[in-house]
Amino acid sequence: MAKVSPLAPAEFVKLPSVGGVRLAAAAAGIKYRGRTDVLLVLLDAGTAVAGVLTRSRCPSAPVEWCREQLRGGRARALVVNSGNANAFTGKAGRQGVLVTARAAAKAVGCKPGQVFLASTGVIGEPLDAGKVTAVLDRAAAFADADRWEAAARAIMTTDTFPKLATATARIGKTRVRINGIAKGAGMIAPDMATMLAFVFTDASIAAPALRAMLKEEVIDTLNAVTVDGDTSTSDTLLLFATGKAGGPKISKASDRRLKAFRHALFKVLANLSEQIARDGEGARKLVRIKVKGAVSKNSARRIALSIANSPLVKTAITGEDANWGRVVMAVGKAGEPAERDKLAIWFGGIRVAAKGARDPHYDEAAASAYMKRDVIDLTVDLRLGQAEDRVLTCDLTKEYVAINGDYRS
Amino acid sequence: MAKVSPLAPAEFVKLPSVGGVRLAAAAAGIKYRGRTDVLLVLLDAGTAVAGVLTRSRCPSAPVEWCREQLRGGRARALVVNSGNANAFTGKAGRQGVLVTARAAAKAVGCKPGQVFLASTGVIGEPLDAGKVTAVLDRAAAFADADRWEAAARAIMTTDTFPKLATATARIGKTRVRINGIAKGAGMIAPDMATMLAFVFTDASIAAPALRAMLKEEVIDTLNAVTVDGDTSTSDTLLLFATGKAGGPKISKASDRRLKAFRHALFKVLANLSEQIARDGEGARKLVRIKVKGAVSKNSARRIALSIANSPLVKTAITGEDANWGRVVMAVGKAGEPAERDKLAIWFGGIRVAAKGARDPHYDEAAASAYMKRDVIDLTVDLRLGQAEDRVLTCDLTKEYVAINGDYRS
Repeated sequence: MAKVSPLAPAEFVKLPSVGGVRLAAAAAGIKYRGRTDVLLVLLDAGTAVAGVLTRSRCPSAPVEWCREQLRGGRARALVVNSGNANAFTGKAGRQGVLVTARAAAKAVGCKPGQVFLASTGVIGEPLDAGKVTAVLDRAAAFADADRWEAAARAIMTTDTFPKLATATARIGKTRVRINGIAKGAGMIAPDMATMLAFVFTDASIAAPALRAMLKEEVIDTLNAVTVDGDTSTSDTLLLFATGKAGGPKISKASDRRLKAFRHALFKVLANLSEQIARDGEGARKLVRIKVKGAVSKNSARRIALSIANSPLVKTAITGEDANWGRVVMAVGKAGEPAERDKLAIWFGGIRVAAKGARDPHYDEAAASAYMKRDVIDLTVDLRLGQAEDRVLTCDLTKEYVAINGDYRS
Repeated sequence: MAKVSPLAPAEFVKLPSVGGVRLAAAAAGIKYRGRTDVLLVLLDAGTAVAGVLTRSRCPSAPVEWCREQLRGGRARALVVNSGNANAFTGKAGRQGVLVTARAAAKAVGCKPGQVFLASTGVIGEPLDAGKVTAVLDRAAAFADADRWEAAARAIMTTDTFPKLATATARIGKTRVRINGIAKGAGMIAPDMATMLAFVFTDASIAAPALRAMLKEEVIDTLNAVTVDGDTSTSDTLLLFATGKAGGPKISKASDRRLKAFRHALFKVLANLSEQIARDGEGARKLVRIKVKGAVSKNSARRIALSIANSPLVKTAITGEDANWGRVVMAVGKAGEPAERDKLAIWFGGIRVAAKGARDPHYDEAAASAYMKRDVIDLTVDLRLGQAEDRVLTCDLTKEYVAINGDYRS
């Protein structure tokens, strides 16, 4: 097991319970030894669900299952396994999904269509669903409202730390809670930011409203994270609302009473996103890229991603080199409106380049000192328009190559 | 200096002379110590020229200069320096180009507009053009018809071996020769395949015909190579035709007498392309990717590039792992028509996956043995249509990270 990322939070937030949500982690021995690899979440009757799933043309069997069941908008259980993605596994994979959903439904006492599934790990190897189903009854019996960290640990693959976030908000006079867990590490790229993330709230919100909010709030959070530009077959973000906090049931996303909730949801998703970037495989630097002065937000996004996914920009940051030349290259190759002679580039507060050339006041010593930091802010001003956008990424290290050159063996 | 790539050719081809072309390499001390870094090529009066240049929105000063001068279609000299790309260098960069073109024109006895320029190396640092111009007179005096290997060495940056190729063809009854040199290594991606390549022929062909042929033949050669997906600011491919072989002057690319010449030109460009992939920064494997059964050639190209540029596919190959799961991921993320349950994947002649799952006859020992080779053939059959395409790439190693984390310092 890799050492914990140097960018990990100093301490993990302890998540409070969310009414109507109980969790259990189990060790099913799918791939890893000596650790948990199955998460079962039990959701009280009446729980609404919405989701955002990978746009990969080769989605995993659980992703296809979730896409189907999300139409119903009702959830009673979530089963997640790590160690095997159950992707590119053909009929056997689909059969495994069905077997798991049925077993969980039986353990929980619901319909299979109210069971949501996610799998993460190696792609293209058969998943022995029997190993997952074997632990479900016992997990259901031991599920508990306080197992958030254990839940976040059970879904990890090459992650070096569990990812947890929480926030509260008021809907009318009702105080509601939002808890989220996520896993990331590699194969992380929009759309959507490749990972598993599960968010739970005790608010009373109907599935269509959850879906509308989720689609909007994911844009600048999980969809604005890239580790390696490799979009996964298994990206799954699910938002469950149990309604246990009481208060009015909100049916429309446009309801003004959701304003604080939206903001809290955004905060949870943004927090998880940053943790995913901080735990990018082999990462030693968190890189926050901002592109401003663009002709549109989409254009800014594409330029920011071109910078974030450039191996040459990433390795320059690994080398603690304020190499604006490679940033210029990445802007130039993005295929978006950009004018070389208007460009300005900053590392932190230090303007290194302006008007198509090195900044005449560029101070190499100051830039070098800045580049030694753990968190690098890289800003590009295109000076063409008013739009801006931000993405999060990390550097590209020898450790990334080591992790991904030895993953299966 | 890095060790020579294990994928380098066993011996370098010795290029014969091409009538009307003389070359000289010089050490101007631009960045490197103890090696040549300026190439001067003298071209006899009457030489026609065509080119293909980077589509970067942030092109280098020499690229802009070449774009302008290519309209004239006439060349008398080529000046190339390594160690500094003269890109993102503002007014000083443009001034440096002018100074260099004028000095070369004086040394050669031609107009500045007949001097073609290319620079490769670090981006965003001022280039001291005086260092280049200081060596031109002496280089012009010593230029010689047989300095091909010296020429190819002078333009190297992180390349570990010089890249040379030659071919002959008949145009009518006239035997003509085509020589090419190139440099690559990093910041290599279409469009166009990021590099400098200069091709010289003694054939008598007008500039518009050269241009039309070059645009076509680059598609499946230099534009089908990617090392890191990072398109350079400085990509320059120039084709010079001196006409010294005699024979009829060909004015149209559609002229049937050009058939053999086109084929020879393709061969030279394809040969240089493979050498560039073999010398990708840190490369230990040459990877030849073929996508067939696609709905169009463009679609096949985009899927092939998605595979070729995937850090996870590349590192799996570094790890000698026949990881078809990551190939599935890269197909899925390409945004092109693909159906998971139709996909078949081969490493060499070994079918590892078919119909959306692992091949039932998959032999891990055979696949593992195959993956130890220097040259890996990866084939994907989408089984949707009749179109196919191929791209060349290399693996992604810790050495790539080392080379690019220390480049400037």
